[in-house]
Amino acid sequence: MKAITYHGPKDFRVERVPDARRESDGDAVVRVSKAAICGSDLHLWHGAMPIAETGFVVGHEFVGVVEDVGPEVRTVRRGDRVLASALIGCGGCAPCRGGLWSGCSVFRARGGQNVFGFSTALPGGQAEAVRVPYADTNLFRIPQDLSDEQALFLTDILPTGYMGTELTEVGPGDVVVVLGCGPVGAFAQRSAQLRGAARVIAVDLDEARLARARERGCETLNPKTADLSAYVAQATEGHGADAVIEAVGRGELLLKGVEIARPGGRVAVVGVISEPTQIPFLSLFLKNLTLRSGLVNPQRYIPLLVPLIRAGRIDPTEIISHRLPLTEGVHGYEIFASHAENALKVVLEP
Amino acid sequence: MKAITYHGPKDFRVERVPDARRESDGDAVVRVSKAAICGSDLHLWHGAMPIAETGFVVGHEFVGVVEDVGPEVRTVRRGDRVLASALIGCGGCAPCRGGLWSGCSVFRARGGQNVFGFSTALPGGQAEAVRVPYADTNLFRIPQDLSDEQALFLTDILPTGYMGTELTEVGPGDVVVVLGCGPVGAFAQRSAQLRGAARVIAVDLDEARLARARERGCETLNPKTADLSAYVAQATEGHGADAVIEAVGRGELLLKGVEIARPGGRVAVVGVISEPTQIPFLSLFLKNLTLRSGLVNPQRYIPLLVPLIRAGRIDPTEIISHRLPLTEGVHGYEIFASHAENALKVVLEP
Amino acid sequence: MKAITYHGPKDFRVERVPDARRESDGDAVVRVSKAAICGSDLHLWHGAMPIAETGFVVGHEFVGVVEDVGPEVRTVRRGDRVLASALIGCGGCAPCRGGLWSGCSVFRARGGQNVFGFSTALPGGQAEAVRVPYADTNLFRIPQDLSDEQALFLTDILPTGYMGTELTEVGPGDVVVVLGCGPVGAFAQRSAQLRGAARVIAVDLDEARLARARERGCETLNPKTADLSAYVAQATEGHGADAVIEAVGRGELLLKGVEIARPGGRVAVVGVISEPTQIPFLSLFLKNLTLRSGLVNPQRYIPLLVPLIRAGRIDPTEIISHRLPLTEGVHGYEIFASHAENALKVVLEP
Amino acid sequence: MKAITYHGPKDFRVERVPDARRESDGDAVVRVSKAAICGSDLHLWHGAMPIAETGFVVGHEFVGVVEDVGPEVRTVRRGDRVLASALIGCGGCAPCRGGLWSGCSVFRARGGQNVFGFSTALPGGQAEAVRVPYADTNLFRIPQDLSDEQALFLTDILPTGYMGTELTEVGPGDVVVVLGCGPVGAFAQRSAQLRGAARVIAVDLDEARLARARERGCETLNPKTADLSAYVAQATEGHGADAVIEAVGRGELLLKGVEIARPGGRVAVVGVISEPTQIPFLSLFLKNLTLRSGLVNPQRYIPLLVPLIRAGRIDPTEIISHRLPLTEGVHGYEIFASHAENALKVVLEP
Repeated sequence: MKAITYHGPKDFRVERVPDARRESDGDAVVRVSKAAICGSDLHLWHGAMPIAETGFVVGHEFVGVVEDVGPEVRTVRRGDRVLASALIGCGGCAPCRGGLWSGCSVFRARGGQNVFGFSTALPGGQAEAVRVPYADTNLFRIPQDLSDEQALFLTDILPTGYMGTELTEVGPGDVVVVLGCGPVGAFAQRSAQLRGAARVIAVDLDEARLARARERGCETLNPKTADLSAYVAQATEGHGADAVIEAVGRGELLLKGVEIARPGGRVAVVGVISEPTQIPFLSLFLKNLTLRSGLVNPQRYIPLLVPLIRAGRIDPTEIISHRLPLTEGVHGYEIFASHAENALKVVLEP
Repeated sequence: MKAITYHGPKDFRVERVPDARRESDGDAVVRVSKAAICGSDLHLWHGAMPIAETGFVVGHEFVGVVEDVGPEVRTVRRGDRVLASALIGCGGCAPCRGGLWSGCSVFRARGGQNVFGFSTALPGGQAEAVRVPYADTNLFRIPQDLSDEQALFLTDILPTGYMGTELTEVGPGDVVVVLGCGPVGAFAQRSAQLRGAARVIAVDLDEARLARARERGCETLNPKTADLSAYVAQATEGHGADAVIEAVGRGELLLKGVEIARPGGRVAVVGVISEPTQIPFLSLFLKNLTLRSGLVNPQRYIPLLVPLIRAGRIDPTEIISHRLPLTEGVHGYEIFASHAENALKVVLEP
Repeated sequence: MKAITYHGPKDFRVERVPDARRESDGDAVVRVSKAAICGSDLHLWHGAMPIAETGFVVGHEFVGVVEDVGPEVRTVRRGDRVLASALIGCGGCAPCRGGLWSGCSVFRARGGQNVFGFSTALPGGQAEAVRVPYADTNLFRIPQDLSDEQALFLTDILPTGYMGTELTEVGPGDVVVVLGCGPVGAFAQRSAQLRGAARVIAVDLDEARLARARERGCETLNPKTADLSAYVAQATEGHGADAVIEAVGRGELLLKGVEIARPGGRVAVVGVISEPTQIPFLSLFLKNLTLRSGLVNPQRYIPLLVPLIRAGRIDPTEIISHRLPLTEGVHGYEIFASHAENALKVVLEP
Repeated sequence: MKAITYHGPKDFRVERVPDARRESDGDAVVRVSKAAICGSDLHLWHGAMPIAETGFVVGHEFVGVVEDVGPEVRTVRRGDRVLASALIGCGGCAPCRGGLWSGCSVFRARGGQNVFGFSTALPGGQAEAVRVPYADTNLFRIPQDLSDEQALFLTDILPTGYMGTELTEVGPGDVVVVLGCGPVGAFAQRSAQLRGAARVIAVDLDEARLARARERGCETLNPKTADLSAYVAQATEGHGADAVIEAVGRGELLLKGVEIARPGGRVAVVGVISEPTQIPFLSLFLKNLTLRSGLVNPQRYIPLLVPLIRAGRIDPTEIISHRLPLTEGVHGYEIFASHAENALKVVLEP
């Protein structure tokens, strides 16, 4: 089958790989209809992650149709239209039963790789087909009235953006700052509105992205031209923001978030910060802050996000800027990495 | 001063009464700029409440300007534009410190009347001026950018509607049924949307009120022409509603609410049911329901509702159907009681 | 195999029935090592439940050893020592995924019987062996350092007692009233202490049971000789109890619970009230009460109760008053039903 | 009056200072009956805090009798036996109304000093008398059945220890690690037990303190002789601790806490870390941790801790190792700072 594979930083290739096949009785194989390139795929692209292997299929955002299921699988069948959680768990261990599939003991015991598309152990979804382990836990049927594209971002970034508002306990009347207007930031902004935020302040350096944030009802601020701390102070009578969500993945933004949060505020990081970051303990102490981060568990958020999409309260497709055939996926990476052509989210079609 | 007074069912009078004056060091006197007639005032009007006294000033929804404060008062001053919580507490006892001013021990010890306008002990706000006890606890300054009318419903019915969604723990993705599209029902619907409900199903017998509910984004159902149980079952794949809010005050609607809630669902009553009502324990048991009701504590909700009004996410004035001078207040009662002239909410101006 | 079967009120028989066998690929068969008689079995015994069938095996509290598993079963194996949740779910439907196995859609669609031992569809555990559907969801391995008797009450009544404290949100410093000192009441009292209650007031008519409650650190009150309302008022400076747990199953006790709860308090019913009960809505309203009841979901509480038993913070065997061979089970019912021989909990050994 | 004053690191003096007097209408003056030396007073002693002033009265833990009240004060009277919160708020600003007196806007506007005994603006309680601003908010009457010593630690360290378990959301069945067995650690351990922890693992370098922790039912570990990470891994089947509370105030212990927490776990710092500390963001991310710290708000915890002390579920006096006259206070500092004479907590009597 055809797939996009990793061969080193900026060396991704569309090539033929062995067909996806079941390896265990709980596996399913999914024929991919749509896949997407995620900001965390760019970490691979830029060489920001230490990866020893090469040749594996990349991508962890995909939807498709079940092609084969093992004898242990109960909840999906051949022909079902499904989405897979980007991050998988066994479903039976203590962390999985407790709702933290990202901490699955089974995968931890094997060395920990439970996100699609970062290893040969768990090949990704930018391909014609994918093997999905523990299908009962990790596949979700797509309701008839949802298109593939409407379901696609439930695999990762819509839950990730929403998680930002859960980790910061956004509630009615809150002033929320979202640092970053990329796909995850956009969904964090939408989620904050859905949870009743009075004001959502969206921050980015990219004016095109800020314009889109304004369209979705946010106030916007470009740190190149205005001072965020002063803006937040003015907006909150000097108290600070109730919630701050870092959706870029830069240590300095986390520090800024801690600075602009109010006493008793909550700060969450849903971007992936790879550089070492010194969190000033004293601010946490003097301001009674809560600081959280974490791998997303889409399994947890899908049941509440699906009805919101069906009811039209969220339209996840608003972030799609490009649709390309899988065979042009490398170009997709290039424009997404460079913000060329105002690329915000690239969808691939095998 | 002029005021509307109670002399028996349907015998309300505009008449002169002694001027409002401080009686304790923590009191303030507020010159009323706007007052409103509340659905619970209609209980008096219809004689549905056992009241021994006559001659007292009615009304518990009012805003105005502070005219006088006692020496203990710290947080408001002469000239401040303020709103009063319809229900007051001393601020110092255990229930008040615990955020349940409605259960204030001081008022309980005196026999319990801590809502304005139902007794001579605590005269109401449909008057030129009102005495407000424990002003530090029960008066709130109105922000400059909020008009009197925007602040007026913070005294009672906007918090009451919002409370319905808190008591039923409405959260993102929920299917919420609001029984009743009067002022409280309308605000419960808005609040459910603000808290992220996927679908809000508004129920009423009055087509004009249903039309307004549709304008605010609700699905609507008139039990005269459609079956609510069937509708909810269909809307939820047979599960039932996540949350049901009774906003009318009729026992049979509470029973219907229990019937249409899903297993694990929440049911709240924010209408005042005066007839004896037999709640079927077995449904609570077999469906693991949570049932709640309660007097509203506006003090609790004002801090989160004010920023929502300021940001334009709620416009409380949307329910105002009539504005009348205080001297025509009796006519206001008549049209509100009879739904004449599509009366939804009547505001009085002294 | 031998089993206790139902043939009508007070007509339970020890007799031979067909061996338990797998019927579906997700089933397991468990050879029973210990079973217990539950208070809700007494509803059958007394004819308080409308049951059309006869001849089925009774009992829903049992532990044993896995004898056979179907091909879909992943998490338990032949030879595992296990306990079964008294109440079962499919594990895959929306209510099950949401943690409410008691509301399982699959069983609801089949007419609803998902408790062992109340129908021929789901024969019970007072037998030499039992078929357990959806074994991955409903069986739990017993840790090596827990005896069968220590694990036995995790199947139902320990979680039920604990649930009483969760439904009433018992927290540090609370004054908690537990109505009833039977097995469920005893565990509710222990659980209230574990969650930090300052005072647990245990109520019963049976002096022997009250003496046991005092041994576990409760204050006790016998309504035959003292007035509960006066006692609670005195204990709480007139405020009322923070939490009241009805653990008997009598409507009048629920009403008493509503009476003695403080404003803002929580009342839960974990006994099964079979008579129609008129809950006074006005008390809920005037006192801002939360009222809850529900079928227990042991699957939810087992993960937190197991470590507490292992650490010695709860000893569930404290309630065992009698151990009898399965063949003497009918005698067990007789003494438990009549409180003869101070029977508190009867364990049966096949 | 006599008082202990600060003149530089290790230069504390017992000397005469001007009598405490009311300065505002909301002030009270309290004649001190007992005061205590707190671990955070040692920061002053050791010169670990940048303090520009000298000559001020130190100490923030004290109880006494109200000697004078201003005209605004409503809730306490002359002659009342009271305790003061170590940290004070105005009671009327948004943070105070929201339950975060530590973030009081009024004090923030004045430069922030709202803990007794760290400045001339707010002289401390190791004195014969103290001025208490905003007495209605910051003084609490001591119930008759509580001794002065039983009430003394409600001013700061009992709430601080308890806060550690709240910030880490300790619940039934949890495995909790408390780093440190000083006064705050001891109360964190007691609080963890009260909230239902299955196991409390107490860590310290001081064997005498570990022996006391064992007496209160903890498992103990001395890092000098055993490996904490290995111990926690073994105790939790490799998962890690549910909650970790740093109660010493050393950056390296915070890092250890992050290491031993399980995925989804909670880490809180209730010790004061003064050295710069680099929190490894990646651990927060990969393990979905919640990290919290904060100034204590005793006002929040006193209402729940008082009933626990009255019921005998916590005996705060267990930590008192020394009782000295105020005039020997400097000796008290010396032995507490050096752990001489097994000093754990020193109480001073004016």
